[in-house]
Amino acid sequence: MKAVQIKQFGVEHLAIADLPVPKPAKGEVLVRMKAAALQYLDLIVINGAVMPDLKLPHIPVSEGAGIVEETGEGVSKWKPGDRVMIHFVQEWIAGDSHPSTNAIRTGLQAQGTLTEYICISAEALVRSPINLTDEEASTLPVSGLTAWTNLVTLAGIRAGQTVLTQGTGGVSLAALQFAKAAGAKVIATTGSDDKREKLKQLGADEVINYKTNKNWSEEVNKLNNGSGVDITLDMGGAASLEQSILSVAMGGYVGLTGFLGGASVTFQLAPAIMNYVRLQGNSVGSRSDFEDMVDAIEINNIKPVVGMVVPFNEFRKGFDALQKGEVFGKVVISFN
Amino acid sequence: MKAVQIKQFGVEHLAIADLPVPKPAKGEVLVRMKAAALQYLDLIVINGAVMPDLKLPHIPVSEGAGIVEETGEGVSKWKPGDRVMIHFVQEWIAGDSHPSTNAIRTGLQAQGTLTEYICISAEALVRSPINLTDEEASTLPVSGLTAWTNLVTLAGIRAGQTVLTQGTGGVSLAALQFAKAAGAKVIATTGSDDKREKLKQLGADEVINYKTNKNWSEEVNKLNNGSGVDITLDMGGAASLEQSILSVAMGGYVGLTGFLGGASVTFQLAPAIMNYVRLQGNSVGSRSDFEDMVDAIEINNIKPVVGMVVPFNEFRKGFDALQKGEVFGKVVISFN
Amino acid sequence: MKAVQIKQFGVEHLAIADLPVPKPAKGEVLVRMKAAALQYLDLIVINGAVMPDLKLPHIPVSEGAGIVEETGEGVSKWKPGDRVMIHFVQEWIAGDSHPSTNAIRTGLQAQGTLTEYICISAEALVRSPINLTDEEASTLPVSGLTAWTNLVTLAGIRAGQTVLTQGTGGVSLAALQFAKAAGAKVIATTGSDDKREKLKQLGADEVINYKTNKNWSEEVNKLNNGSGVDITLDMGGAASLEQSILSVAMGGYVGLTGFLGGASVTFQLAPAIMNYVRLQGNSVGSRSDFEDMVDAIEINNIKPVVGMVVPFNEFRKGFDALQKGEVFGKVVISFN
Amino acid sequence: MKAVQIKQFGVEHLAIADLPVPKPAKGEVLVRMKAAALQYLDLIVINGAVMPDLKLPHIPVSEGAGIVEETGEGVSKWKPGDRVMIHFVQEWIAGDSHPSTNAIRTGLQAQGTLTEYICISAEALVRSPINLTDEEASTLPVSGLTAWTNLVTLAGIRAGQTVLTQGTGGVSLAALQFAKAAGAKVIATTGSDDKREKLKQLGADEVINYKTNKNWSEEVNKLNNGSGVDITLDMGGAASLEQSILSVAMGGYVGLTGFLGGASVTFQLAPAIMNYVRLQGNSVGSRSDFEDMVDAIEINNIKPVVGMVVPFNEFRKGFDALQKGEVFGKVVISFN
Repeated sequence: MKAVQIKQFGVEHLAIADLPVPKPAKGEVLVRMKAAALQYLDLIVINGAVMPDLKLPHIPVSEGAGIVEETGEGVSKWKPGDRVMIHFVQEWIAGDSHPSTNAIRTGLQAQGTLTEYICISAEALVRSPINLTDEEASTLPVSGLTAWTNLVTLAGIRAGQTVLTQGTGGVSLAALQFAKAAGAKVIATTGSDDKREKLKQLGADEVINYKTNKNWSEEVNKLNNGSGVDITLDMGGAASLEQSILSVAMGGYVGLTGFLGGASVTFQLAPAIMNYVRLQGNSVGSRSDFEDMVDAIEINNIKPVVGMVVPFNEFRKGFDALQKGEVFGKVVISFN
Repeated sequence: MKAVQIKQFGVEHLAIADLPVPKPAKGEVLVRMKAAALQYLDLIVINGAVMPDLKLPHIPVSEGAGIVEETGEGVSKWKPGDRVMIHFVQEWIAGDSHPSTNAIRTGLQAQGTLTEYICISAEALVRSPINLTDEEASTLPVSGLTAWTNLVTLAGIRAGQTVLTQGTGGVSLAALQFAKAAGAKVIATTGSDDKREKLKQLGADEVINYKTNKNWSEEVNKLNNGSGVDITLDMGGAASLEQSILSVAMGGYVGLTGFLGGASVTFQLAPAIMNYVRLQGNSVGSRSDFEDMVDAIEINNIKPVVGMVVPFNEFRKGFDALQKGEVFGKVVISFN
Repeated sequence: MKAVQIKQFGVEHLAIADLPVPKPAKGEVLVRMKAAALQYLDLIVINGAVMPDLKLPHIPVSEGAGIVEETGEGVSKWKPGDRVMIHFVQEWIAGDSHPSTNAIRTGLQAQGTLTEYICISAEALVRSPINLTDEEASTLPVSGLTAWTNLVTLAGIRAGQTVLTQGTGGVSLAALQFAKAAGAKVIATTGSDDKREKLKQLGADEVINYKTNKNWSEEVNKLNNGSGVDITLDMGGAASLEQSILSVAMGGYVGLTGFLGGASVTFQLAPAIMNYVRLQGNSVGSRSDFEDMVDAIEINNIKPVVGMVVPFNEFRKGFDALQKGEVFGKVVISFN
Repeated sequence: MKAVQIKQFGVEHLAIADLPVPKPAKGEVLVRMKAAALQYLDLIVINGAVMPDLKLPHIPVSEGAGIVEETGEGVSKWKPGDRVMIHFVQEWIAGDSHPSTNAIRTGLQAQGTLTEYICISAEALVRSPINLTDEEASTLPVSGLTAWTNLVTLAGIRAGQTVLTQGTGGVSLAALQFAKAAGAKVIATTGSDDKREKLKQLGADEVINYKTNKNWSEEVNKLNNGSGVDITLDMGGAASLEQSILSVAMGGYVGLTGFLGGASVTFQLAPAIMNYVRLQGNSVGSRSDFEDMVDAIEINNIKPVVGMVVPFNEFRKGFDALQKGEVFGKVVISFN
């Protein structure tokens, strides 16, 4: 089988290797990958910034979907032909995050998805939504689930609330879609007026250009009848957290979700305290949350936004596009 | 002003009286009623079954909407012309139900809405949704809010869950609409195949005839991939509770909401225990919940189902229709 | 090794068999049992009433504690000598109960604890509290955890609330102790004035004799300043549920926990609805809840009440005592 | 009556004035103050830093307890002689904080407690715990309630959890006491070894000197078996937030409660995100929370720590002591 490997840190060193197809042990499943979705985290891993002591060679990429090829001894849950997605925090089945189930992550401590075949615990798979292609399903394990757990599990979104999404990355677009499915109003920000119409088509009620409105929290409050929003997922860290805090209403929720704009953040305590703001760190979610999300995607026929599909052999094009950040939606590597 | 009064228990004794228009005291508001919506509870009150010691004469009916005519001293929250709805548990502002704020209910301990004018605390009003007519808004204070608090406040509905609604009364139709707005799947029951299509038009994914399926919980499980639903609002009490319990999935929620089929209920503990079922008594909700519901109605453009509108002078026709139970949707008395 | 087996339903047919000591497979642990605690459920299983299709011979009893003797391949979590308790719902690790993790229960679908050695998944063990003897620890997997999940996980007990415990069975005594540790007031019922003093010694603030007060809910309200309690665990089913409902305050919690007095229950909806009562079915809890409970037991030095210890060879005396119901506290079989 | 007034900003300008005893209007109560408790917030208000546009003269101080002297028209809830405490966020009765009920705070927008008599809404009073003196009760409206809402309402403290309290201010000492009453383990920090023994006497399981351990989060983890705590209330803002974040376990709660060490805070996102930390802004609590706290104080016989009592005429000594920060426990002004 073919698989992309990090033999040496740096995207330029990625190379396709020819490896033996693994055999599923007791309790494991062999999955034939159909699609792998890229995210910034993958780039950081490949460049050696997240896990400098990663044992090389290593197959990168955390998100993916495929088809069960073979099941190991004692696996009754899956059968060949089942369409499945790879769970990210592999041992986190249900309940709150806990150190004992938090250690093994697809593409980090465990092998990633940029491979034709992967052997994985039967407990670390989730069925793909019947209304999605494999390319679409491949975007859910991290981007989709991060949006879902913030909105649903942590913030407890209700119909009638207002959600602020920030930018057009995979998490933010998924949050927009889930928020609309849950009956919320959505205000979306973008740095590009070109994307305004696309955000509206996805359901955004209002769109703000955060580049031309440096104090975009004011615009948010203006567009929400003078009140802040109920929920936002902060994606920019140092570049946006202070505006995120000023964008939420009394009792509002700010998901600490990304740090594209810097990981050392500063903010003023007074508004956070007086406004009962909740800043909630979080990192993806449990398999149980993942399964709940699949139900929501099917019942509401939500289609994750795939902006670009690249054949496996041309995987470099995918990372190039990811780095440029110009694709609206997820960049997916296809194994078809 | 004209108002319908109970001078003696019994619908047949209801009569229109000519009364002086009240004057709003400090902190009060005078509301000119535009519409009042009827429910079974009103009939029971009028017949003397709920509050046999009710002081007569008494103006009945609990739900209604109107327009602020005049404000008393110290009221800054409302101004003449504001469209408002009458809150039911008048002193329940926010938080959990508590004996100290649970005593004064519109149409019961307090005067009802079947009157051209009503004087009421400024704190016992909620703005009418801008997307609704007064007739539509008049259905929200009890029917709408009971559905909302069950689904949202108590059961914590999530997108992707399945809700079972029972019959076509005002609470059940509102529950159907709110559940769909929240991204849930809905299975609706009805005793009449004629109503099947109307339920589908409101968004029901599946419809079951509970008269031709006495063990309708089996059909519910069949239509939900072999699993029970996440949430149901039991409306029939003795006639339905056992089936309601068998209709929910592990950890499911059964709202104890009605007792049209008898108030002395019997059920088997074993399935309730083994299945972690929650049976939740409840009676309408707080003003804060009411306000949240208004946001959800506006953002999702939900239109409560008004099945029949009767002019004030012909109010008897409304009670007749209510008693026959053949109207699909709420029966509303209009003051226009 | 010696183990008690059900070869034919009926306590009188229980017999000690001589069996080979099992060998832990991959992921399993061999535990040398030190103590097994009895409960009514065990009697019902032994009599064939719960699982008539139980495959015989079967080793009964659900609760127990012991010492790790040997670990199978791949087990890093435990080492020989570790003191452990046997988890009841073996695959329920964390989060809400779910059909996929609810099937395997110690002493029911899986082998029980009335044996010198047991082989069990490393994931189905919890460390024994350091402040408890093995006899004391053996009472926690079902009795203790049922009390804990009702009070803490489901009812969310707070300091300053009032809890009503019913009778002197293992669950109720554990509930009394946990409620006091959590800073609550406790009203305890008993059918025997002899036990009054013992309940007081365990911390009960008030004790009611439910035999001499048939309408004991009135006494409960009287002893709680005219208000109902916040939480009760109904143990009697048909014999007590109606009184339980009348014993709780507005918004109160009634755990559907037992059915010693009959499993077909009847109650009046009106008080449950008007009082926002929550009736919550439940059956033990997750391993994560179990681990939380261990922390609470250690920090508050809670000592489960062991009323009688019987040597393994005389196990019949234990079942006799359990049937008579005269022991105050748990009946424990010791392997020392 | 005599009252201390701010006639000009600055503690040195405070002066006792002779004012007419107010008359309770409809719905109001006249309270004869028995004790007022001081906090840093009072100093900041007096110095003009919080509300520079405060209308002068103004009676300062937010906490206090007294006795009902007279009730206005329509007040049935209180009668002369009732012992009461003054609620801080006067219109916040129950439920979540909301802008509409958040505006009127005792000692800020409303008159404060450093006066022999105060007229206040009957809804803004809470009965004093029967086990406390007026001096002790006077410390509860802000210090006590801030500790309570953080631990109980927001963090949902459970028996067996670990709480880290920071320093020996009124909030932290109350948090220590409430945490112990709730069955938690408490690690307390102090900047002075002299206070170690006093903290132990209040129930602290462990005490850390944060002055001699700059990276005290390491000590916290060491004293908690290598894991962080479940809950901490950050009191120092810029001086402590980063250590607070590193002190909590996965999923831990950090109350944003104070900013004695600076209000512009900086922290690293990565540990907060990877560890699912919740940073929760908050400012005192609702009357319903206050009433729950009173129940907890009575049932557990909790005695707030009063470190110094000063007669009304010598009120300056109280502010001096507060500024020096050397009193262990609250500084209380007595009207006796």
